[in-house]
Amino acid sequence: MVPVKPASRHVLDYAFYPGSIAVVGASDQTLSAGYHFLKHLLDLGYAGKIYPVNPKKDSILGVKTYPGLKDVPCEVDLVICCVSTDRVLPLLDECKIKNVKIVHLFTARLGETGRPQALELENRIKAAAERLGINLIGPNCMGIYSPESKISFGYGMPAEPGNIGVVFQSGGAAALLVQDCVLLGLRFSKVLSYGNAMQIDESDILDYLTNDEKTGVIAGYFEGVRDGRRFMMSLSAAARNKPVIAIKGGRGKAGTRAVASHTAAVAGSHNIWDTAFQQAGVVQVRDVDEMIGLLSLFNGLPPVAGRRVGIIGGGGGKCVIAADLAEEAGLTVPPLSTELKNKLKELVPSLWDWIGNPIDFSIWGDEAHKAAQVRQLLSEDPGFDCLLMHLSDDNPLDDEWWTAIVRMDVDNIIDLHRQKKKPVIAVLSGARPGYEDLRNIRWKTISEQRSKLAVAKVPAFDTTAEAVRALAKYVGYWERKRYNP
Amino acid sequence: MVPVKPASRHVLDYAFYPGSIAVVGASDQTLSAGYHFLKHLLDLGYAGKIYPVNPKKDSILGVKTYPGLKDVPCEVDLVICCVSTDRVLPLLDECKIKNVKIVHLFTARLGETGRPQALELENRIKAAAERLGINLIGPNCMGIYSPESKISFGYGMPAEPGNIGVVFQSGGAAALLVQDCVLLGLRFSKVLSYGNAMQIDESDILDYLTNDEKTGVIAGYFEGVRDGRRFMMSLSAAARNKPVIAIKGGRGKAGTRAVASHTAAVAGSHNIWDTAFQQAGVVQVRDVDEMIGLLSLFNGLPPVAGRRVGIIGGGGGKCVIAADLAEEAGLTVPPLSTELKNKLKELVPSLWDWIGNPIDFSIWGDEAHKAAQVRQLLSEDPGFDCLLMHLSDDNPLDDEWWTAIVRMDVDNIIDLHRQKKKPVIAVLSGARPGYEDLRNIRWKTISEQRSKLAVAKVPAFDTTAEAVRALAKYVGYWERKRYNP
Repeated sequence: MVPVKPASRHVLDYAFYPGSIAVVGASDQTLSAGYHFLKHLLDLGYAGKIYPVNPKKDSILGVKTYPGLKDVPCEVDLVICCVSTDRVLPLLDECKIKNVKIVHLFTARLGETGRPQALELENRIKAAAERLGINLIGPNCMGIYSPESKISFGYGMPAEPGNIGVVFQSGGAAALLVQDCVLLGLRFSKVLSYGNAMQIDESDILDYLTNDEKTGVIAGYFEGVRDGRRFMMSLSAAARNKPVIAIKGGRGKAGTRAVASHTAAVAGSHNIWDTAFQQAGVVQVRDVDEMIGLLSLFNGLPPVAGRRVGIIGGGGGKCVIAADLAEEAGLTVPPLSTELKNKLKELVPSLWDWIGNPIDFSIWGDEAHKAAQVRQLLSEDPGFDCLLMHLSDDNPLDDEWWTAIVRMDVDNIIDLHRQKKKPVIAVLSGARPGYEDLRNIRWKTISEQRSKLAVAKVPAFDTTAEAVRALAKYVGYWERKRYNP
Repeated sequence: MVPVKPASRHVLDYAFYPGSIAVVGASDQTLSAGYHFLKHLLDLGYAGKIYPVNPKKDSILGVKTYPGLKDVPCEVDLVICCVSTDRVLPLLDECKIKNVKIVHLFTARLGETGRPQALELENRIKAAAERLGINLIGPNCMGIYSPESKISFGYGMPAEPGNIGVVFQSGGAAALLVQDCVLLGLRFSKVLSYGNAMQIDESDILDYLTNDEKTGVIAGYFEGVRDGRRFMMSLSAAARNKPVIAIKGGRGKAGTRAVASHTAAVAGSHNIWDTAFQQAGVVQVRDVDEMIGLLSLFNGLPPVAGRRVGIIGGGGGKCVIAADLAEEAGLTVPPLSTELKNKLKELVPSLWDWIGNPIDFSIWGDEAHKAAQVRQLLSEDPGFDCLLMHLSDDNPLDDEWWTAIVRMDVDNIIDLHRQKKKPVIAVLSGARPGYEDLRNIRWKTISEQRSKLAVAKVPAFDTTAEAVRALAKYVGYWERKRYNP
């Protein structure tokens, strides 16, 4: 917990760095949200005071439990509210007594049901909170993941912090983002899932993350906004200060309907969102998978100077397809320069006139051991802004040689990445081995190399198509930055 | 080996069902092609006569070896030629003596080098073969994978046959295709990689696969053709008879250059190819990964009647994004009909008015055990032509419950798939776990379920984006079939 003077605290400081937390509706039922939220605090090791609230229990998960919030002996910074909708209004009165700064309403089935009664209750809750001066996150959201404070809303969310700040209207999507990113070695500063945005909204959170020095990159998922003008200001300010990668959820007819029943948001015209993202300088992506790819680029790579990519490794078919995909994604795949050709003439006299970009390694035969030197030459060549590396996993060799070559490829790629001469990304294999397949030394090797690349922070993709799409958006971001610094 | 009367045999029958094979340039060096080709025959259990040819060895891998092809005591159907370019012409004369029907020239560094001398030699080889009446596959290709005959050109290619026929100009890409498909339970009838297509070309192979009753689906990768008119006829005939999924390699500037140095092909205008594929009724894909997805659909699914997709499972964010991606891919995501709503009213009175398409399972709470019944209702509903199933891998539960629910999801999906009421596809998870991550029960479970779906032949994708793109192309194929039967 970072000590901050109360007077200077932003309301969201009480969400990310609370001194005490009450879990209202805490439970020992393992299917219950009131169990999960309490368990996460204990598992991660939240260091502040924890007050489970449940009228029927003396203790839950070994923690002394209180019949009502009003019975808690001290003031409470943050309430995580897991009770049903009819119990929220009385709880807010108790919150006032305990000087609660912020309430995370996990509680759902309000506006998003589309039912008039539920919507009316949502409005009454909002009015009560405003009258009482209590801040609300949600309702209908998973809330807070703050690794520094050891607060989490999902299993498998690590205690170790990183520099990615997340503002997601969907808690499920935020959990998937975190859990999948973790596999790539990506870590988070602060994650907030904000659901129906009854009070604290996307703009509040964006502003907070923009000013948060622990946050280096912002990932956003938005289904709708109520105050478009303010959102544009917040988004533009955020994107001026750090890379912002965002998804607009509800771009089409069915998505718009789904948004209404998910967070009661009004999706708005997709064109407006496209324009807004573009004007603000946001990197727009279409789904969480694409977002993860971009985050791995912003996490692991230096800025990129242009869109000329050198493609290295794999056989002829892979090279042809990679060249096509790269150009279709908006990158350029220039031929080798005369200077580089001359250097290759010295290094591989039998091949220099035949080699191009992409560099097909299947034709190298006896010269294959020079792969590392060729990669090094391209890395130093001023004709390329970035390098895309395929593994030679299409080499036609037996298990032993195949494995040795793939491992060498990866060591070599990691070495180039560490030199930081230019951005390097890797493509491993689009295959989807099942658990039993991993007994096979080849798939086991690919899995092992994937971990090795993640530890070294080399962005690694399963397919060339994903790799070049991500790279093209990364290039687009830095191009814009050069013209609008 | 299928016995066929010699008089009625197609020349490619001698490639796929040879009675005897000579591996010329056989070797005991484990980095040598002459070692691999021989080893594959032995490993898979080729039942015909095998004659390794190498002037310096008496036996290789335990098989009696001959100094020259002319020294082989019998006639030879197929020669796999692994010697260098300067030794091909004398070999062809020996082939004539041994009544060889077809020669697979693995031998490379001919036209594709772009060097005038090599090109001239390629032309002389072609002329000699024509004069001697010998058929050539290649040069510069991996050749033949014929599971029925136990002939293979790659490690990890199974002996078990299936119904996918492959005509690939690139051998490396063909090997990747086979090896990755195997993980999904897909198997092959015949695979031919044909390289520079000096003589036997894409049209010959297409015609053969069109008439091959063991082949149910054709997968093609083409870098260029010499006789466009004949190719169009062959392609159209193939696509009239069975689904054809194809990649044009060399669509852009860099890809065209890469094609020249890969197989010496002239890539041609991409527009012409687009039009050709469209006119012929070919399902065009952009890379091998996308091709694998389509093959899994054609392999596992019944025809689809239209483009209305029901999307089921996962939480709100996942549903919103899936609806967007599906519509962007050209599918429609219709609302639930009144009839279906009425059935849901009976089944889940507390939710029926709130549920839509996609069906968000995160709101089901106490009703979650009815998931299977809801899936069944959608499967029987005339308002949907196909179903896309997400796992509830975004459920916020602990390992035990999470795993139980994911397993139930998959059992349920397999059950619906078996009922064959309409095409069902699954999306598992876009995450890329490394080897160590698979110790985690969640990633282990995903890997296990992936195998289970593969065995049950349920097409399963890592991401919703790939799933809907593949599904849209599958739908397009069947739409065209209805109008052009």
